[in-house]
Amino acid sequence: MTILAVGSVALDDVETPFGRVEDALGGSAVHFAAAASLFAPVQLVGVVGDDYPLDRLGFLAQRGVDLGGIEHATGESFFWRGRYSHDLGAPETLETRLGVFGSFRPQIPEAFRSPEILFLGNIDPELQGAVLDQVERPGIVACDTMNYWIEGSRAALLALLARVDILIVNEGEARQLAEEVNLLKAARWIRAQGPARVVIKKGEHGALLFDDEGIFFVPGFPLEEVFDPTGAGDAFAGGFLGALAGRGGPSASQLRRAMVMGSVTGSLAVEDFSVGRLARAERRELASRAREFRRMTQFELEEREETDGG
Amino acid sequence: MTILAVGSVALDDVETPFGRVEDALGGSAVHFAAAASLFAPVQLVGVVGDDYPLDRLGFLAQRGVDLGGIEHATGESFFWRGRYSHDLGAPETLETRLGVFGSFRPQIPEAFRSPEILFLGNIDPELQGAVLDQVERPGIVACDTMNYWIEGSRAALLALLARVDILIVNEGEARQLAEEVNLLKAARWIRAQGPARVVIKKGEHGALLFDDEGIFFVPGFPLEEVFDPTGAGDAFAGGFLGALAGRGGPSASQLRRAMVMGSVTGSLAVEDFSVGRLARAERRELASRAREFRRMTQFELEEREETDGG
Repeated sequence: MTILAVGSVALDDVETPFGRVEDALGGSAVHFAAAASLFAPVQLVGVVGDDYPLDRLGFLAQRGVDLGGIEHATGESFFWRGRYSHDLGAPETLETRLGVFGSFRPQIPEAFRSPEILFLGNIDPELQGAVLDQVERPGIVACDTMNYWIEGSRAALLALLARVDILIVNEGEARQLAEEVNLLKAARWIRAQGPARVVIKKGEHGALLFDDEGIFFVPGFPLEEVFDPTGAGDAFAGGFLGALAGRGGPSASQLRRAMVMGSVTGSLAVEDFSVGRLARAERRELASRAREFRRMTQFELEEREETDGG
Repeated sequence: MTILAVGSVALDDVETPFGRVEDALGGSAVHFAAAASLFAPVQLVGVVGDDYPLDRLGFLAQRGVDLGGIEHATGESFFWRGRYSHDLGAPETLETRLGVFGSFRPQIPEAFRSPEILFLGNIDPELQGAVLDQVERPGIVACDTMNYWIEGSRAALLALLARVDILIVNEGEARQLAEEVNLLKAARWIRAQGPARVVIKKGEHGALLFDDEGIFFVPGFPLEEVFDPTGAGDAFAGGFLGALAGRGGPSASQLRRAMVMGSVTGSLAVEDFSVGRLARAERRELASRAREFRRMTQFELEEREETDGG
């Protein structure tokens, strides 16, 4: 029951109204692994340059993340610099240097080729497909993507989606991919391309799961203090897939629990810069916050409304 | 167990990507009454000009809305013309003519002065206060407001809030009123000004109730077809307060049920132009949609997560 995650391993300079960090651990694979490793063993595949402070990933290794798939290339690591304004909405990108990530061609180590769950982080859909070619078909194949690939690599992305079980994207990406403003219709269109399940993340507004059972909705956890939204979406994906590890099929009930754990890990992720909060998180906290989610959404109708409701 | 509602009675020209209507029934009091009357008797106070097609409010009268508090003034009725773009977000206002609404001074008829619940729709806070002065203290006093009064009549608004039990506003208004981006902090600040309960509406993203019990969250109902968002917030308030009518205190459980009914009526309201959908709605539909809300949000944790969760 291991989760194989492929994605970016980066260094981020992030500025929010509440502070700033330089050369912080970042990248989709790192945020994902910081969340998923709270639930299950993770195998991580990515690339770093000569400059990467690998020792700072030690907390992941201690939590059962196998870093043996991180390729060490000559050059600079992927670097992103961004700034969030007071509403902590979409950040302004001030600088992106792809470095060694620009020519990343994921090689899956022999020992990583039989994962239970595969998470294809947001990279070129051609490369996502090439990763899938290198492994035994996992029980669950999940992937992420972004506007850049939706616009520029649509055919490759659609070819990939036909091989994917769960697409995990945000609201805007779902609308752009389906060329449809209405989220229900967008989700139906995406499901028709392959993924039996579509998870649509809405940031602080929560997330939706669309599958044969219908729609499941989990809110965002209301937080007093949000320090840094960077990586929250990847933390959601990590918590979601982490909660599915070792659960087989998974059942409709397991998928709903996983959505809640996705929102739990996403809400933890933003409570500190970089992966600081997820590094400190404990299993017990996850369950406690999940129970708070239930208290926050549970309600009773009146007796007649429980039956025909007239 | 009657609900007294004071607000605007208007005619709207509305254009959305899905069609347009001219001289449609509109105004906060009308949208509110169309929703609240699905649950309880409503007394409506507002003003119309010579041009208002009062016969078209007949469906409200048939549903137990007492229109005896609508003042007939000489002049033109309040008119609003707006256009929504493809995402059905905030509309562009193309024209506003206040007409007789500009000099509206609500007079509460003798027979309306002992309501169980009072809803002070979005008008000048001085006038909202004057309405409150004219009635026996109702069990529940709820009010709405908007950016115009928050900016221009802050002192009067704060004086009013000290006399109000429930403030029902949207996200942006809550933030502006409290001068605080974080919604939890904004709600806490507002509650400290008077209202023991604050309802914050987030449009399609649902709504939050803040009270002594903590936070309750109800999602927006995912809809395939949204025709016209006009009045959805007032329909939410109508369903919410309607569901509280005749329930006494109300209990924490009744407040949660009311939030769900608010979201139910808000979601119905947008399925047709003007009050068309609420005019057709039946009690049975409300309960059925409320049960769908529960199916959409219910989840189970694993056994150990139900206890200490380790």
